Amino acid sequence: MTLHTISFENNTLKIIDQTLLPQKLKVIELDSFEKSMEAIKSLRVRGAPAIGIVAAYALYLEALRLKNLNKLTPLSYKEISALMRIVRPTAVNLSWAVDKMYHCFKENYSKDYLLENLKNCALSIHDDDRQTCEAIGKNGAILLENKKAVLTHCNAGILATGGNGTALSVIYEAFKQNKQLHVFVDETRPLGQGARLTFYELNQNNVNCTLLTDNAAASLFQLKKFDAVILGADRVTLSGDFANKIGTYNLAVLAKVHKIPFYVAAPVSSFDRNLVNGKDIEIEMRDSNEVLSFWNIDQKQSYKVYNPAFDVTPGRLVTAFITEKDIITKPFKKNINQLLNS
Amino acid sequence: MTLHTISFENNTLKIIDQTLLPQKLKVIELDSFEKSMEAIKSLRVRGAPAIGIVAAYALYLEALRLKNLNKLTPLSYKEISALMRIVRPTAVNLSWAVDKMYHCFKENYSKDYLLENLKNCALSIHDDDRQTCEAIGKNGAILLENKKAVLTHCNAGILATGGNGTALSVIYEAFKQNKQLHVFVDETRPLGQGARLTFYELNQNNVNCTLLTDNAAASLFQLKKFDAVILGADRVTLSGDFANKIGTYNLAVLAKVHKIPFYVAAPVSSFDRNLVNGKDIEIEMRDSNEVLSFWNIDQKQSYKVYNPAFDVTPGRLVTAFITEKDIITKPFKKNINQLLNS
Repeated sequence: MTLHTISFENNTLKIIDQTLLPQKLKVIELDSFEKSMEAIKSLRVRGAPAIGIVAAYALYLEALRLKNLNKLTPLSYKEISALMRIVRPTAVNLSWAVDKMYHCFKENYSKDYLLENLKNCALSIHDDDRQTCEAIGKNGAILLENKKAVLTHCNAGILATGGNGTALSVIYEAFKQNKQLHVFVDETRPLGQGARLTFYELNQNNVNCTLLTDNAAASLFQLKKFDAVILGADRVTLSGDFANKIGTYNLAVLAKVHKIPFYVAAPVSSFDRNLVNGKDIEIEMRDSNEVLSFWNIDQKQSYKVYNPAFDVTPGRLVTAFITEKDIITKPFKKNINQLLNS
Repeated sequence: MTLHTISFENNTLKIIDQTLLPQKLKVIELDSFEKSMEAIKSLRVRGAPAIGIVAAYALYLEALRLKNLNKLTPLSYKEISALMRIVRPTAVNLSWAVDKMYHCFKENYSKDYLLENLKNCALSIHDDDRQTCEAIGKNGAILLENKKAVLTHCNAGILATGGNGTALSVIYEAFKQNKQLHVFVDETRPLGQGARLTFYELNQNNVNCTLLTDNAAASLFQLKKFDAVILGADRVTLSGDFANKIGTYNLAVLAKVHKIPFYVAAPVSSFDRNLVNGKDIEIEMRDSNEVLSFWNIDQKQSYKVYNPAFDVTPGRLVTAFITEKDIITKPFKKNINQLLNS
């Protein structure tokens, strides 16, 4: 696992620019708050846990800059928090990380070591995520014992987190134990995180894998080519409804109809204590051009494109959530509540 | 309807090169048998009815060329028929057209007007298809009365036939009667016939339409954004199982789960009298590069890609077939048998 999705050394925040993968493995520095927000907005860094980590570092660095200008006040820190929180709306980890940093700011505002503590808070968000990924992998691998092949969607891997990923951490761990495991990878239109990132990561790590168009997944269900679906989540509600990359709901329906287990790997930080119903999750709509430009179609005023970044899958279609603490099965309302209060 | 997908005048066969759409509307001449086969193989012309028509003209022109060289014999004609038949395996119309021309050849071989009759046979295949499309449109429009929105997949339109299409002929006819009808168009990876061809055709004809990635269709089902699915077929078996563009089976499952009617528009020539079970339909597997090149991923020896051109949908998921003769409902075995013997 040689990819360093996010690095932070000597107060310098760097990320792999994922929009350039897999052609080019380029590390870029996020040396301003605006650059960090732009990197999240334009998916140079993506994946619910990863954007939380970048947001935390970016808030610390901006607080440091404001401090040096004698402009760090509760109001100015609140402003940058508010700006960061809305860069992408669907993944809860972004606002979770912003909240965690804000809490740290409030606790330590009048103290000398405010900046030191903000930095430590960001570092611990990053470090916790590494450990979280590892624990998710270990917990989930049990579910993939004896499985021959699984399907995954989008990228819930090294490139989406501060560690080995969520869904892919499970796959890496299961693969260690069972070298025969085969992974089918949806390309994941419109932005191809499956084709560009997951297929790249898995090949880099010598995991047996096959790429397919999103259209082709159903025919593999029909042919019984895999015996589980495993993917990540951007926001899980208290009832087990969850938002994830567009196309996820489709796979959940297919898994149900074909009687194949459907696993969602996500850290506890992706669970939203404030939401019960999946219908209340805000879904980010993205630009028409993400779809049109692929086919070299020039955007015209009259052209309509429906391009949501996520969809919502009802909890009833989920077999289990794999978290760093435990595997959560039904009834979800009761068991998610227990998880969050344990 | 100003697109001339296939034209044949003064013994000159021309097609719109659909691989260049929608950026470029270029008409190319197919002035050799090899060029015609290449055009079908590489999808310069595609759509089950359209490739049947091009095959028929190409066989006539090749017979004419052989005749002029004094090389037209039952054996040489049989050879070119065999070559054409296997250019693409899934759509039955190709072999149906080859058979029709072969029958004409055998009937007229010893006669002076053999070539004239072969030409007339090809012309009638083309002309019949125009009328067939119109009749499919009229029959199917009844099913879309009072519908507000439909979803279609791939391109079963003007560009797939010698007329107004199959599924899209129904939509054009329904739109004439109900200008409020909205059409959702799957982009249809890997080759984007939805994005490049259907979205283009519908916009050219001022039909209200919205483009989406294949991944996004399920979320529209969930949101109840349309009240029917309508698409074409490349081969229908006697039990109602049918092959169509990859992704079709997925939509059939979604339609069933969401209780939305699922209509398949196809000419009688797409029904295969020799097959009962959909599992016996040969599925064309296409090159890995069709998927990889989109993401600028260089093909490596170790990279595995699953890229079928079609999938098979069981008849039980179909609400009705719309043909030029009639609307065929269940039980399909009985009613398809009646259709083919009427």
